[in-house]
Amino acid sequence: MTTTGLPFEQTEMHPQRWGSPDRATTLPEQARGLVDFAFGLRSTPADVEVALPPLAVDAAHVQALADLLGAEHVLTDDADRRQRTRGKSTPDLLRARTGDLSDAPDVVVRPADHEQVAAVLDYAVRHHLAVVPFGGGTCVTGGLAARRDGFAGLISLDLVRMKRLLAVDHTSMTAVLEPGLRGPEAEALLAAEGLTLGHYPQSFEFATIGGFAATRSSGQSSAGYGRFDALVVALRVATPRGEMRLGSSPANAAGPDLRQLILGSEGAFGVITEVTVRVRRLPAQKVYEGWRWASFEAGADAMRTLAQAGLLPTVLRLSDENETAINLAKPDQIGDSPEATDESAGGCLMIVGYEGEPDAVQAKQQAVTAVLTGLGGEALGTAPGESWAHGRFDAPYLRDSLLDVGVLVETMETATFWSNRQALYDGVRTALVDSLGEGALVLCHISHVYETGCSLYFTVAAKAGDDPLPQWMAAKSAASDAMMAAGATITHHHAVGTDHRPWLTSEIGDLGASVLRAVKADLDPTGILNPGVLIP
Amino acid sequence: MTTTGLPFEQTEMHPQRWGSPDRATTLPEQARGLVDFAFGLRSTPADVEVALPPLAVDAAHVQALADLLGAEHVLTDDADRRQRTRGKSTPDLLRARTGDLSDAPDVVVRPADHEQVAAVLDYAVRHHLAVVPFGGGTCVTGGLAARRDGFAGLISLDLVRMKRLLAVDHTSMTAVLEPGLRGPEAEALLAAEGLTLGHYPQSFEFATIGGFAATRSSGQSSAGYGRFDALVVALRVATPRGEMRLGSSPANAAGPDLRQLILGSEGAFGVITEVTVRVRRLPAQKVYEGWRWASFEAGADAMRTLAQAGLLPTVLRLSDENETAINLAKPDQIGDSPEATDESAGGCLMIVGYEGEPDAVQAKQQAVTAVLTGLGGEALGTAPGESWAHGRFDAPYLRDSLLDVGVLVETMETATFWSNRQALYDGVRTALVDSLGEGALVLCHISHVYETGCSLYFTVAAKAGDDPLPQWMAAKSAASDAMMAAGATITHHHAVGTDHRPWLTSEIGDLGASVLRAVKADLDPTGILNPGVLIP
Repeated sequence: MTTTGLPFEQTEMHPQRWGSPDRATTLPEQARGLVDFAFGLRSTPADVEVALPPLAVDAAHVQALADLLGAEHVLTDDADRRQRTRGKSTPDLLRARTGDLSDAPDVVVRPADHEQVAAVLDYAVRHHLAVVPFGGGTCVTGGLAARRDGFAGLISLDLVRMKRLLAVDHTSMTAVLEPGLRGPEAEALLAAEGLTLGHYPQSFEFATIGGFAATRSSGQSSAGYGRFDALVVALRVATPRGEMRLGSSPANAAGPDLRQLILGSEGAFGVITEVTVRVRRLPAQKVYEGWRWASFEAGADAMRTLAQAGLLPTVLRLSDENETAINLAKPDQIGDSPEATDESAGGCLMIVGYEGEPDAVQAKQQAVTAVLTGLGGEALGTAPGESWAHGRFDAPYLRDSLLDVGVLVETMETATFWSNRQALYDGVRTALVDSLGEGALVLCHISHVYETGCSLYFTVAAKAGDDPLPQWMAAKSAASDAMMAAGATITHHHAVGTDHRPWLTSEIGDLGASVLRAVKADLDPTGILNPGVLIP
Repeated sequence: MTTTGLPFEQTEMHPQRWGSPDRATTLPEQARGLVDFAFGLRSTPADVEVALPPLAVDAAHVQALADLLGAEHVLTDDADRRQRTRGKSTPDLLRARTGDLSDAPDVVVRPADHEQVAAVLDYAVRHHLAVVPFGGGTCVTGGLAARRDGFAGLISLDLVRMKRLLAVDHTSMTAVLEPGLRGPEAEALLAAEGLTLGHYPQSFEFATIGGFAATRSSGQSSAGYGRFDALVVALRVATPRGEMRLGSSPANAAGPDLRQLILGSEGAFGVITEVTVRVRRLPAQKVYEGWRWASFEAGADAMRTLAQAGLLPTVLRLSDENETAINLAKPDQIGDSPEATDESAGGCLMIVGYEGEPDAVQAKQQAVTAVLTGLGGEALGTAPGESWAHGRFDAPYLRDSLLDVGVLVETMETATFWSNRQALYDGVRTALVDSLGEGALVLCHISHVYETGCSLYFTVAAKAGDDPLPQWMAAKSAASDAMMAAGATITHHHAVGTDHRPWLTSEIGDLGASVLRAVKADLDPTGILNPGVLIP
């Protein structure tokens, strides 16, 4: 094959909301009553148009960067800067809605390739400008809110022009992708080769390949395709000290695996400029089913049984009782959906998805069905599965429409070993309800499973008080403390950013934090890369 | 369960040969003719008894260590020091055979637990004594030959007393093992719980849990159970700067995966004192079969097909034409083995093993058999599989008996992506034959497969010249250069040690090497741990 790429196009999200402006929604009429009953409705419109802080960077730097990249790829307009201010966590949206743009970058640069990224870093080192790599802008942990004090300015390094599929190896089943490719773009380029990456996080439509690698993303099909870090076989990285190329074999014993040091480094060690991933053939068939379990515990035990029997399907996801009941009440389905009635018997809804060649799908489906039936699961057919698949990327739009009516909504996630699942679940739920009050709604699902454990993903809704930002930050802090108290991880797939940084040392220990600082000091001696992000 | 352990027992290998002295063998009579024909026979006995270099450590240090651990666990006898001089590579054996004991440690210490390891490190830091962690002593890459210059002495830190199974979690299917457990000891303790680790490298009978982790070992059942690094979920490490505990979830996005920095660190960053591993239920059934392929390429393509179809059996191993022919001629089977006749049709022998519950074994066997038959494989039944399984740990004994008669034998291994397999194979073979001469015999097998690539494991035999050590080192160097030229790894599962260190920077780059030095400087600021090993 020859290198293929996509035409340069700057698709942008609304600076105060999730996703495509043309898909923004208001809370459906039929759901307003329910939400009003639970939380009360009030209008909190998000149309504050505030001027940005003035440029904190010298015009000479802007000109010098323009000389490097071309003037059309060095942007200082308010709109461009607002667009790259923070990510899409609820705190980010709350700050944007109240006009707090204090984290706006001074200048946005759009390098075309590895060499231009290296040139920007070189310039930034020499003039002590902070650099924040920017992919899809979907971060929900404050990873784009770099510290700027002490620097001559803050550069947002937008990878949007780096959208090439550089190579495909159909024998080894690998592909070399540039970091600026969004999920659907990468899939489209691979599909032309008959291939797929199979990585579908909820942010899929906007998040990028570089971001997936830098944050150790995990997608909704992780049971079948693996976490993103498991898909990566090689990396090219531009650091302030030069280029790194890692990954000359699928696995090896040539010392520590340094790929695993770059994966999850959140732009603090370098800018990932090429990602070589394992790919699979495009699945000929996709089947998504629903199953009902009497309890969250029964469903979780079934997931564990499948994982430990080596019988994982492609998608495996289990909602707790609360989330199952709310899914049933999802805004566009209340009262008019046949499967809603099916689901109304309560219990816990499990989604089981199979992708692959028809023979393989059938064989896996038979084996999994036998196990699930034997454990007491009730097969609900494909309707709940199709419904889930249809809306799988839509939840963030609903969050915006709930924020619009004064309901605070956010998610958080963790992971632990199976024997600790219930304690972690109880601890986090209790912390959230204690912090937000009895009226808070806490939903949970398991969407990533391993032989030894699983993730827990919480969705929280509460009536927004007069000052919802500290209200949420207190709840988040309590829940994070509960994760640490339970001996779990601070994040299964949302990364550390600035929001989780206070808990990282508790997880990896003083020496672990010291090692991260040592690596940072080695690769980024002047500390220009994403200052204040990740490294404790 | 309560913690279980094994009685303290110092099982030692012959200092100049592999394995148990009572299993040492001479070359079987029926093989002598063949070997004589190929290489010529001459006696090179290995019974040089040379005195060790005098103790280079102050007696006060010996006494201080005895105060910490008890006098019976601080050893300075010649026999104890000789026992822990280097590992079991052919160069190591050649040096031992000629009486070169220049790498002998000054003092051997046997700490009982994490705290005693920490105490030894603390003492060593304060008095600038070098420390070499010692497990099974099976290293084949010079990982036990630490540099001693500039230090007040060289301590061999033998983990032989740390043989406990500290915890088993039957729900999460994990177990916490101490580092001094040898392969069979760990399996025995786990078997009492109905569990298995499933890690069977050729060194299984002597190598230890700590060594498996520190070197990223990979076993003969890696297709089914995974590489050792994939089995590790948590680690406890004693470093000169204190304790590290890593691994609070199966997987996470809490920054870089620091477990992957300790795995493969070969004692240069710290001493691994606890390893939490994923375990599986003891398999109820084990079936090993032979298959014949027309060529190495055809067999390799079949392996690739299985890996990419998600249909890996537990054991999957393919010998090239040369290795298949030599296996046919294995010393204890010549002329009297029915399966030898079966195999004599030539081609390439593949071993396919299945372990698990009977239903799962049968299902996997049917699916794999269909694929292999469809690709032109010829089923040979279980006799070749059983024969392989029977002798799977014996090759190193044969090496000793060949060294006894003047034949130089050694192994080396690498890995690459599937599309590069043939080029790597050709490159390494050519380098070895060019260096050792046309009479050299180069055998190869694939024993570890991934979706994206595989390992290549070479066995080399040549007539030993008058000075076999430089003869082999030149060949090894040429083969290592060929691996780098092919863009492959310097080692798939033997680790770096001192022997592969000159090539590591070529593989991980100047910045990768710099990162390793930075981590080393952070965790071991005075550089006492395994100086000269691993870190470029």
